[in-house]
Amino acid sequence: MPYISTRTNVKLSNDQCESIKTKLGKAIELLPGKSENWLMLSFEDESNLYFKGKNDKPLAFVDVKLFGKASKDAYNNLTREIANILHEELNIQPDCIYVKYEEVSTWGWNGSNF
Amino acid sequence: MPYISTRTNVKLSNDQCESIKTKLGKAIELLPGKSENWLMLSFEDESNLYFKGKNDKPLAFVDVKLFGKASKDAYNNLTREIANILHEELNIQPDCIYVKYEEVSTWGWNGSNF
Amino acid sequence: MPYISTRTNVKLSNDQCESIKTKLGKAIELLPGKSENWLMLSFEDESNLYFKGKNDKPLAFVDVKLFGKASKDAYNNLTREIANILHEELNIQPDCIYVKYEEVSTWGWNGSNF
Repeated sequence: MPYISTRTNVKLSNDQCESIKTKLGKAIELLPGKSENWLMLSFEDESNLYFKGKNDKPLAFVDVKLFGKASKDAYNNLTREIANILHEELNIQPDCIYVKYEEVSTWGWNGSNF
Repeated sequence: MPYISTRTNVKLSNDQCESIKTKLGKAIELLPGKSENWLMLSFEDESNLYFKGKNDKPLAFVDVKLFGKASKDAYNNLTREIANILHEELNIQPDCIYVKYEEVSTWGWNGSNF
Repeated sequence: MPYISTRTNVKLSNDQCESIKTKLGKAIELLPGKSENWLMLSFEDESNLYFKGKNDKPLAFVDVKLFGKASKDAYNNLTREIANILHEELNIQPDCIYVKYEEVSTWGWNGSNF
């Protein structure tokens, strides 16, 4: 039950979106017990973002929400991989990417909570 | 002070939006002490969503944020009702809907925090 | 490592956006240790929002996420200032503005977590 929302000021082509989707579907396995089988993704491109008071560079804010918890190491690995993916696919520099985690205790699917 | 954001890949008509709004305004009463009187809603339709690696079905991610806490039963009832509403109004299958809860301890309105 | 997302049903001009950006870059200093140097902002204007069952007024939902914590007083000062900014710049009434805080314990930048 993870969910990753990716917000960027870059415009995503369909191909880029599909490719990032596939890579995030692998990357999520860095969190033990998580897989693409339960992963929901959202992409918001061409967003109105600023970082350090400027909007002249490619930027991204990635919000990873997961049911339960994971270890510091697992989160660190996932942050590194997400930065790699967005750098490879969209040429966003890692120092222009925030990745934020939310551990969620109440999460519903199919009409009831886990 | 609840806030419900509904993100879906379905396109919402004005009528559907109004109807979902009205039903969520009732459903929020399933959380004790909450009512439409303090409820803010956002709707993001035609979003770029994937679930289980695919985007070929109607999908929704619903984020319920509330000031304070509620019981497990109350959350479960609200998840069921939200799934019902989105199924009735948008024909989204309940197993394509995530409902995520965030209990918020610092919440501002009218220029100061509760 | 703060992030402020501002969602409103008002349409923002470029000038308004720049002005709000600059003012939020100052306001964030109300949280000790935070500054525009680490601040990311997002703006979503012309959003589909409802408050108290209606969408006939200018509305805003502001989500402040920060790495770590701050004091009640600091949060209160920031809520007041955000309401002032949105009132001055967009003529949104403070009683039509929610400001919600999230204290984040896992936050990544530049490919690893803080």
